[in-house]
Amino acid sequence: MEHVTSLDELPLRDDLRGLTPYGAPQAPLPVALNVNENTHPVPDEVASDILDDVALALRDVNRYPDREFTALREGFAEYLGHGLTAEQIWAGNGSNEVLQHIMQAFAGPGRTAFGFAPTYSMYPLITQGTGARWVAGTRHDDFTIDPDDAARQVAEADPDVILLCTPNNPTGTPLGLDVIEAVYEAARGVVVVDEAYQEFAPHDAPSALSLLHGRPRLAVSRTMSKAFAFAGARVGYLAADPAFIDALRLVRLPYHLSALTQAAAVAALRNSATMLRMVDEIVEQRERISATLEALGYLPHASWSNFVLFGGVDDTQALWRALYDRGVLIRDVGIPHHLRVSAGTEAETTAFLEALASIGPSA
Amino acid sequence: MEHVTSLDELPLRDDLRGLTPYGAPQAPLPVALNVNENTHPVPDEVASDILDDVALALRDVNRYPDREFTALREGFAEYLGHGLTAEQIWAGNGSNEVLQHIMQAFAGPGRTAFGFAPTYSMYPLITQGTGARWVAGTRHDDFTIDPDDAARQVAEADPDVILLCTPNNPTGTPLGLDVIEAVYEAARGVVVVDEAYQEFAPHDAPSALSLLHGRPRLAVSRTMSKAFAFAGARVGYLAADPAFIDALRLVRLPYHLSALTQAAAVAALRNSATMLRMVDEIVEQRERISATLEALGYLPHASWSNFVLFGGVDDTQALWRALYDRGVLIRDVGIPHHLRVSAGTEAETTAFLEALASIGPSA
Repeated sequence: MEHVTSLDELPLRDDLRGLTPYGAPQAPLPVALNVNENTHPVPDEVASDILDDVALALRDVNRYPDREFTALREGFAEYLGHGLTAEQIWAGNGSNEVLQHIMQAFAGPGRTAFGFAPTYSMYPLITQGTGARWVAGTRHDDFTIDPDDAARQVAEADPDVILLCTPNNPTGTPLGLDVIEAVYEAARGVVVVDEAYQEFAPHDAPSALSLLHGRPRLAVSRTMSKAFAFAGARVGYLAADPAFIDALRLVRLPYHLSALTQAAAVAALRNSATMLRMVDEIVEQRERISATLEALGYLPHASWSNFVLFGGVDDTQALWRALYDRGVLIRDVGIPHHLRVSAGTEAETTAFLEALASIGPSA
Repeated sequence: MEHVTSLDELPLRDDLRGLTPYGAPQAPLPVALNVNENTHPVPDEVASDILDDVALALRDVNRYPDREFTALREGFAEYLGHGLTAEQIWAGNGSNEVLQHIMQAFAGPGRTAFGFAPTYSMYPLITQGTGARWVAGTRHDDFTIDPDDAARQVAEADPDVILLCTPNNPTGTPLGLDVIEAVYEAARGVVVVDEAYQEFAPHDAPSALSLLHGRPRLAVSRTMSKAFAFAGARVGYLAADPAFIDALRLVRLPYHLSALTQAAAVAALRNSATMLRMVDEIVEQRERISATLEALGYLPHASWSNFVLFGGVDDTQALWRALYDRGVLIRDVGIPHHLRVSAGTEAETTAFLEALASIGPSA
């Protein structure tokens, strides 16, 4: 019988031994509300416009893409407003890659990255994947953070990179600009505000983009995966001081953004009004989820994102499985007695809420 | 006057200070033969087929892509032959990203990567970017490597990752399978054979793919950038033992390959016969370049790739500039008295050779 090589027999790095790959289950269920996708497809007229741009890009696809993705950076600067220019913009294959570039430039071996737990589960993984050490700070019981406590924790940890997710994943919690200002003042390292879900916040909620001026160690990252319904295209981006962008140029792989990605994203940005028109509808479903969860005896946390984290779950595994058996996939994010559900279309949201109601009230 | 922040004022990693970003000049010249692109565009009928698949992918682009890119891995297994199956395949946004995954899994902080210089200039950069140390071995004066010397150098350096580029960039030099076997036997670490230019080798030249069976520390990487005329789409890939692939899963960012990339690459692979039909034509132009360079008094090195490195250049900067002024962009790869030129279309190759002839014979 032939010998089958196991991973343990390969000269893998010691710090990777015993790990399993990151990944939400890819289960083909009728109602998938587990990874905070925008469940509304891109409108046909936008898809058609994107396809025209991709067709043009294919004519030159034998050539390397524009390494500086200039048209795309101009598109993001215009979309973000706040007086930003293309030289203040960076982008990558998903905001994960943008964060990886930040870690490579400002953290990496011998350095540390910091965030207030629970927060986005990829932060520690990207930190460790680039050789740095992850330090987890704490939040209040309702997952909020206040300026004084945040500044104190940051001063004590003295990290090289600080990641502030707002609204926070997986809790949905917004973060005041006063916290960001306090953390920036207390920090020696760079401060990254991850606004992946910002478009789902109240329309008058200020963005950390308004704090960029005069703060060269501050960066604000965004993604097209959520509000833009573009998760499959893998486009994350960031705004910061031009010197900060120069630092990322030192560590990115050349030509990291394909010509097709650049073309598709530029076309999508040109249609941002149409792309974003489902945002208000999703926020409505989120509010409906929160209200119904409360009526059923669960404890939904305040959310400014496209998902709701709810507590009061007696047995998370049992409830997750009961929903799964009813064709609804949500997420156990590892917080005891809590589960997370993304706001879907009206029909998907109804399916979730009816499945939940059929299981019976919270114990 | 407002203060402009410089990169030096940011808390950048010490090992990045003073560096400048990698990058060939992106000069808009009529004849660009500097980055070993395939200068033949993708045939219209293939572009149209690719576009159909991209249109389908756009329908679900609001969802995250298949994290396991199963259809694409099946396509690569079929294209490569040698009895390979999808579980032996990996892919990334360009072979640079594939190499980065290898470095993250098997090299990284405290470890070393090794290659025989001069070789692909990204190897040291990807090594350092992931925190490992680059060790350069040596080649004979004609850039060849022999099995005994190679094994001796590898045993002495005892690296964690060995990168063997064949045909070698920037020299074009092929590498015998006996060298790969000898290096594998002498090594404790993983051995990566980079066959980015393999399709331009003689049709009967064996691939290192034939050595994979029974060698779990061996990997063979390829790219769609060159023979497939797909540099703009950023698709590199690799074949190895399934356990080796499992190691890469531990370090890749989830969903690193976009749905559009997967769709475009699958469609291109389905049309591989058409995509590859320019390879023989490019090889003809390469032979024409070598013959003419020799007639002009230069010293072209034997090449199995889509480019020619030539010595006998008195003043590389002057010759590079003289060609530039005539609308022809080639590459100074940093080897004294040498320049590198990619084989273009017949017309581009003629333009290069005529420009060179107009400058006069080698001094």
